[in-house]
Parts: sequence; C-alpha cells; structure tokens
Amino acid sequence: MADNRRAIVLLSGGLDSTTTFAIAKQQGFLVYALSFDYGQRHATEIEAARRVAAKLGAAEHRVLTLDDAVFSGSALTDHVDVPKLRSDKEIAAGIPVTYVPARNTIFLAHALAWAEALAITDIFIGVNALDYSGYPDCRPEFISAFENMANLGTKAGVEGGRFTIHTPLISLSKAEIIRRAYDLGVDLSLTHSCYDPLPDGRACGQCDACQLRKKGFREAGLTDPLDYVK
Amino acid sequence: MADNRRAIVLLSGGLDSTTTFAIAKQQGFLVYALSFDYGQRHATEIEAARRVAAKLGAAEHRVLTLDDAVFSGSALTDHVDVPKLRSDKEIAAGIPVTYVPARNTIFLAHALAWAEALAITDIFIGVNALDYSGYPDCRPEFISAFENMANLGTKAGVEGGRFTIHTPLISLSKAEIIRRAYDLGVDLSLTHSCYDPLPDGRACGQCDACQLRKKGFREAGLTDPLDYVK
Repeated sequence: MADNRRAIVLLSGGLDSTTTFAIAKQQGFLVYALSFDYGQRHATEIEAARRVAAKLGAAEHRVLTLDDAVFSGSALTDHVDVPKLRSDKEIAAGIPVTYVPARNTIFLAHALAWAEALAITDIFIGVNALDYSGYPDCRPEFISAFENMANLGTKAGVEGGRFTIHTPLISLSKAEIIRRAYDLGVDLSLTHSCYDPLPDGRACGQCDACQLRKKGFREAGLTDPLDYVK
Repeated sequence: MADNRRAIVLLSGGLDSTTTFAIAKQQGFLVYALSFDYGQRHATEIEAARRVAAKLGAAEHRVLTLDDAVFSGSALTDHVDVPKLRSDKEIAAGIPVTYVPARNTIFLAHALAWAEALAITDIFIGVNALDYSGYPDCRPEFISAFENMANLGTKAGVEGGRFTIHTPLISLSKAEIIRRAYDLGVDLSLTHSCYDPLPDGRACGQCDACQLRKKGFREAGLTDPLDYVK
C-alpha cells in the first residue's frame, strides 16, 4: 500500500470502529475520521470518538449532525427499552429492536459525499457479520451493493475512480477483533460500546453490545479495561 | 394500484419533483413529502416545496436539516459561480460544477430511513436522464443500484418487503414533463427551478436550470408562469 493514501473511517468510538481505524492506519492510510451526532441515547459515543481520533492521530475528525427526526422506531433513538441480559441464542435470532432504519446507508452516504469532496476513494467501516446482532446493513452483500451504487452515482466513479468500502472486521469474531486491537497496541479503555450507558458514562454491562463485548474479552483471554455497572 | 397506498416523494419544489408528486397522486398514492434544508443558495426552494406540499395535499411534509458541512465542492453549496448562458452543447457535455457530491444518494438514504420507519416501500424521485445536465446520480443504473442496496440493507427488505424507487420522469424530455404537469392540472407557478435566484426570489433566467426550463416550455408550446430577471 502506497504511503500518503487517504481514507475515510467511520468512527463511533466503539471497539469495532476504533480497531478499524488502527487497521487502516497500519495499512498506510492517512485517516479522515467521520462521526455522527444524532441525538442517540449514548452521546458518550461522541466523546469516545473524539478521544480515539486524537489518540490515533486522525488527519481530521468531522462530526456531522444528523436531524433528530432522521431515525425513528429504534431503541437507540426512541424511548424504547434497550433489551438486557438476553441469551446468546436470543441475540443471534432475528433483527433486534436496537436496529436503526437504514443507519449504515445514511452513514456511508455521508462518508461518500465527504470522500468525493476530498478526492478520496477508500472508506472503512467496522461492520461485522458474525457477531452482528442481526443487523441487515452489516452483511457483506449490503456493503457490496453500496459500493456498486457509489461507483455508479458519483462523478469520481463515472470518471474512472473506484470507490472501495473496506470492512476489515467483516468475518472476525468479537474475540478476534479484540486480539487484533491488542496486537495493534490500541488502548481499548478509550472505546465505548454500550447501548444504554449511565449518566456518568459507565457501561450498563447487560445490553447486547456489552454482553458481546464481555464475551469477546473472555474468549480472547484478555481483561476488558472498561468499568461496567454490572 | 390499490387505494391508500403510501409513498415518499422527494420534493425540492422544482418543476420535476412537483410533477413527480402529481404523478404519484394520480397513481393512487397518499404522499409523504420529504425536503432538505442544507444551506444551499436557493433557500427559496424550501418555500416552494412548502407551497407545493400544501397545494397538492401531502399527508405529511417533512423538512430535514442536513449539516452544512455535508456537501462541499459544488457551485450549489459553496462560493463557486453558477455558470450562465451556456449553450445546449456545453450543458450536455460532462458533469457541471453544479454537481453536488453524492447528493441523491444522501437524499434517497434519508427517504429510505423514513420509509422504513413508516412501513412504506414506495419512494418517488423526479430524476431525469435526458435533460439531466450530466449528473451521474440521475441515471437509471444508479437508481437501480440504490434499489438493490435498499433491499439488502434494511429490515423491511430482508423480511420480504420490496422497496421500489419510482422515477416516472426518467425518460421524458423537459417539454414532455411540462406537458405532463399541465395535463395533471399542476399549477407550475408554485414551482421553482433556478440555481441562482435573486434575493427577492426571482429566477435568474440564465443558469442551466433556467435555460433547460425555458427551452422546455418553448418546445412544449406553453407559457412559463415564472417571472425571470432576464
């Protein structure tokens, strides 16, 4: 990979997107980090994203505000209870209430607009198809369809550029992602994954995201630096 | 077409999107109109969209605010001069500076999120491939790629719903669109197409959009109710 290549990395400040940032960096990309502020329950996400962008050395970190009315019908944005202490089987079965309509489509569309404005053709997103909790927009076939659309719907694509949506975590288990982060020297105490954190920012320890993360650390044989409520 | 079917219609308040709204209505759809406020030069667009939504009877008209930083590198959003008095040949050649990176991708992504929240599977957009001024995201192959992505990346798509992106104007000339609007009884004095209107809201008469519109009226043998500066 040539030096000085530039990439957009979608950065929520969670474990997956932070590891994705570190992988893009390792591959020689100068990283332009993109986060979204959309009135989600966990505004602590944005603080985590800012910490990560600073610590990992983003060339620029842009936080775009999305209209609060954009997403609705999801536990992450509405007043729907975040499910707690679900079994692995429950987590794996079907699309959960924490699904946000077309979220990755909207995130990637914004990344594409920024990429085209900066003449960047590489976009990284930390989606994961194994421990993906049933989100349709984390599947490889969705990513591939988005990439195809991006190349047909942009000036850069039509004029011979070639957008690539990189998904380095797509086939990794949570434990493998955590090991990868450790191998890359990522400080995982910076990251935040909880769907329903306390006002003081501590992770609940019981939502799907906390449970997947805890299980991942157990399976990786590593200690999670996060301070959980339970 | 069954009664009481609902559709999202992307509504800029221009000639094309207004005619698209009227066509959706004629096809029996109850229309949910969606507009965007993104600090574009022509804020008069939004006023036009409100007039059209009220007059044509939208079930709801939602105006979403997009972050001003989303679009850049375009004459429509930055301080780039809007080209004036270009010849037909110049207008037809290549992608103009008024191209906005990934704009229709972002518009359609928001329409998709709202559609999924409302359990709607039909989305109308007034893109036009003949008089499209060289925008890659107005081409049928882009629309088809977006539709494919939507069905792979959403809960509704995965669970057997089928999103359809309707483009009733895609193969019509501007003159044919204008005739269609007249046949449907659309009051075209409500609409606004100019890329560079005066502060008093009047159309400049010389940008690509004004020129295409004027030419369309001439070819349709109809009189444009708009008051142009020139």
